[in-house]
Amino acid sequence: VNPDPIPDPPDSAHFDRQGRARMVDVGGKPATERVATAVAIVELRPEIRARLLAGDLPKGEGLAVARIAGIQAAKETSRLIPLCHPLALSSVAVDFAPEGEDRIRVEATARCIGPTGVEMEAMTAAAIAALTLYDMTKSLQRGVRIRSLELIEKRGGRSGDWSAR
Amino acid sequence: VNPDPIPDPPDSAHFDRQGRARMVDVGGKPATERVATAVAIVELRPEIRARLLAGDLPKGEGLAVARIAGIQAAKETSRLIPLCHPLALSSVAVDFAPEGEDRIRVEATARCIGPTGVEMEAMTAAAIAALTLYDMTKSLQRGVRIRSLELIEKRGGRSGDWSAR
Amino acid sequence: VNPDPIPDPPDSAHFDRQGRARMVDVGGKPATERVATAVAIVELRPEIRARLLAGDLPKGEGLAVARIAGIQAAKETSRLIPLCHPLALSSVAVDFAPEGEDRIRVEATARCIGPTGVEMEAMTAAAIAALTLYDMTKSLQRGVRIRSLELIEKRGGRSGDWSAR
Amino acid sequence: VNPDPIPDPPDSAHFDRQGRARMVDVGGKPATERVATAVAIVELRPEIRARLLAGDLPKGEGLAVARIAGIQAAKETSRLIPLCHPLALSSVAVDFAPEGEDRIRVEATARCIGPTGVEMEAMTAAAIAALTLYDMTKSLQRGVRIRSLELIEKRGGRSGDWSAR
Amino acid sequence: VNPDPIPDPPDSAHFDRQGRARMVDVGGKPATERVATAVAIVELRPEIRARLLAGDLPKGEGLAVARIAGIQAAKETSRLIPLCHPLALSSVAVDFAPEGEDRIRVEATARCIGPTGVEMEAMTAAAIAALTLYDMTKSLQRGVRIRSLELIEKRGGRSGDWSAR
Amino acid sequence: VNPDPIPDPPDSAHFDRQGRARMVDVGGKPATERVATAVAIVELRPEIRARLLAGDLPKGEGLAVARIAGIQAAKETSRLIPLCHPLALSSVAVDFAPEGEDRIRVEATARCIGPTGVEMEAMTAAAIAALTLYDMTKSLQRGVRIRSLELIEKRGGRSGDWSAR
Repeated sequence: VNPDPIPDPPDSAHFDRQGRARMVDVGGKPATERVATAVAIVELRPEIRARLLAGDLPKGEGLAVARIAGIQAAKETSRLIPLCHPLALSSVAVDFAPEGEDRIRVEATARCIGPTGVEMEAMTAAAIAALTLYDMTKSLQRGVRIRSLELIEKRGGRSGDWSAR
Repeated sequence: VNPDPIPDPPDSAHFDRQGRARMVDVGGKPATERVATAVAIVELRPEIRARLLAGDLPKGEGLAVARIAGIQAAKETSRLIPLCHPLALSSVAVDFAPEGEDRIRVEATARCIGPTGVEMEAMTAAAIAALTLYDMTKSLQRGVRIRSLELIEKRGGRSGDWSAR
Repeated sequence: VNPDPIPDPPDSAHFDRQGRARMVDVGGKPATERVATAVAIVELRPEIRARLLAGDLPKGEGLAVARIAGIQAAKETSRLIPLCHPLALSSVAVDFAPEGEDRIRVEATARCIGPTGVEMEAMTAAAIAALTLYDMTKSLQRGVRIRSLELIEKRGGRSGDWSAR
Repeated sequence: VNPDPIPDPPDSAHFDRQGRARMVDVGGKPATERVATAVAIVELRPEIRARLLAGDLPKGEGLAVARIAGIQAAKETSRLIPLCHPLALSSVAVDFAPEGEDRIRVEATARCIGPTGVEMEAMTAAAIAALTLYDMTKSLQRGVRIRSLELIEKRGGRSGDWSAR
Repeated sequence: VNPDPIPDPPDSAHFDRQGRARMVDVGGKPATERVATAVAIVELRPEIRARLLAGDLPKGEGLAVARIAGIQAAKETSRLIPLCHPLALSSVAVDFAPEGEDRIRVEATARCIGPTGVEMEAMTAAAIAALTLYDMTKSLQRGVRIRSLELIEKRGGRSGDWSAR
Repeated sequence: VNPDPIPDPPDSAHFDRQGRARMVDVGGKPATERVATAVAIVELRPEIRARLLAGDLPKGEGLAVARIAGIQAAKETSRLIPLCHPLALSSVAVDFAPEGEDRIRVEATARCIGPTGVEMEAMTAAAIAALTLYDMTKSLQRGVRIRSLELIEKRGGRSGDWSAR
């Protein structure tokens, strides 16, 4: 038994019947409130992390730079991910917290009122904020790693709410 | 003993002595050839992966879309990562391979001849190509995960060659 | 008799009474469904066309690259055509078909629900997809030509439906 | 006899041996001066053309808007045409002239000193300038047509000079 | 007595309670008509100004270039000002008038129907139009100065109408 | 006597002999080091300024957001100011200092090694950083004003060094 069969590509799929990439038509879908949260985990040496979080790296601006980068990236999502729709985001938030001894958790939440979800916006914000942390620490430590990037929650839309928490 | 002490932020760091974010001056550095390769691992159910790779998803265009997205993102790096320099990339390549039963390996290589490295360009290309795969499969499987994103090789520049392979 | 007199620039024209360029006010117009289709014809040697269409050029990715380029360009229209309004496109599709012995027909359709039409979005998508085909074949044939670019259909909006088919 | 056999894709082609799209490596090519000129022909009713050219449409700004659009588009080429390299353009010029009774000729010339040509930059500038003329006249005449878009001259680079004039 | 106490940051502020930058949530706000007008004053030598305004500089295109630059910049506001929301602008107008002996007044008006105001769009349009005038005259006069940039009127939204005129 | 006659537009002017806007050809100019510094003065109530500078507004991130906005804007200059050339900036720095009782001084310095100056990059960075301060304080005070924006120093290039200090 396969408890979770693969559906045929529904009308929200990115390809038409001949297999050609297209931007799906969301014109008939109602505008509802959508929220999505994604998390990226950045792994870096405890001392580097300490400097970044405590602001001994420079005045805490490290996190501010990454936060702004994530927010800006959310607004660029439809230009980065080819088949995404342009969206009028109603808010984006990006936050950081230490996890374990050597990880920083980057959490990004995007919201809009629209016909399509903001999953990719949250994922993109988390990815770019994490890459910015990488960029700011790469002269101090080689091999900083983004250890995972995933959606953890999604609300609104036809497919209903979902949470990995 | 700490075999790998944290250096003081060198002139290539992103902050000045007062801790303010700035774009580092690379004006005095010679233009040399730079290469960097980054890898992202995307984890998705074997059946979905099979469809994506074999082109049973639509005609293999799935990988083409992600490849183009990664290439384009590499060119956008300095607009996405706030303290990166604009670069005249001389090439970008993005490729995909299956790994294990349920993973796709996204490998991105960027090159330029310039005063600063292309590490962030390779990382950004891999990240956005992986996010595009996510976007194209998310209607078929919830919880697709980008399992890691890291640099695996870097050549050129003052700090010398480096490889995690 | 002039069966088709030039109207005075209506309120939808791009210039104010003093002749200065401006972005027309569409604030009072209702949001309705808009569709537009544009076609570009690319002329290239039969053998080159054969390779492009049959995928003997490389695996059909040539068309995929051009399709993505067209879709992405549609989303950029208001940044490329100075007096266009930003639009929340609900879909974009770009397709290719052989015509005669030496032509490829590029057809782009854009849709939105909004106060203004998507004519320029369809035209821009067709133009950039055609230019991408040009770019991908220019090392094989000099003098590839885009032979025409025109609107063929338009639905929705105050001025009613129109078709050149 | 085939007087003009199709060459195998040279190293300047956009696909690697496996047929995957990539941005070609231009890192080993010397920087030389490159110039390219492209022409687009816009066909519109004589009265509309007269108003546009004579400035009876509004003060000649119509042409200025299209000229600026073309220049700006040339600078965006590597973001619009997926496999183009970012280039430091040294100049762009866009000009307009009447042709016959009902055509406007849009001529765009791009220059750079670099390892790769500016053919796509000239083509893109001509295309977007022509689309802007279309946009500015579309409320006055339906069915304005861009009748052709082609390269007419190219200088510099390994493949030598070429002219269609 | 302090007749105008500083309010606590309301829900429209850009920072959350912990002081982190975020894009404010406008999802619950109704879409209403918004208008804002900003003015920049550019100060330049009377002879230079005369050439610019009279079109003895080249054919008046100087003002057209600056006008287009301002209009385009208004559409880019959310990408330039990090915490601004993307907006579907319904119109933008930029105009110029002489003031006193050596000043040009740049006036920019932006409109939209949306949940948030267009103050930053008007300010950005005025700023970039003024910078473009600066750019076009800087080879003729050193030390051209933008003497002020401010909002002069704002209508719509919860906080009511406001005018500095 | 006119001690400072207006020169005829030199080859570095933005218009050709017929008065049409164009992007000047810098192809024949050598690449030399260029530096430019611009200053914007923002005027706001002492209490608001105190909160912004002391970080009682939120944790000093206000200045970090404006700094990043200015740095990012410098990299966008050639897309915002229509006749500017794309440049490979080698560094950008943006800083803030109180002046008098109610002003903040925004100072932006741009550098590159190239054939053309970075004056517009410094001006654009200062303008957008100042607008970001405006954006972050506008919910606390109406009528924040950017009181001036001007170049204060410029080094490198044919026209020699210049300083307004």
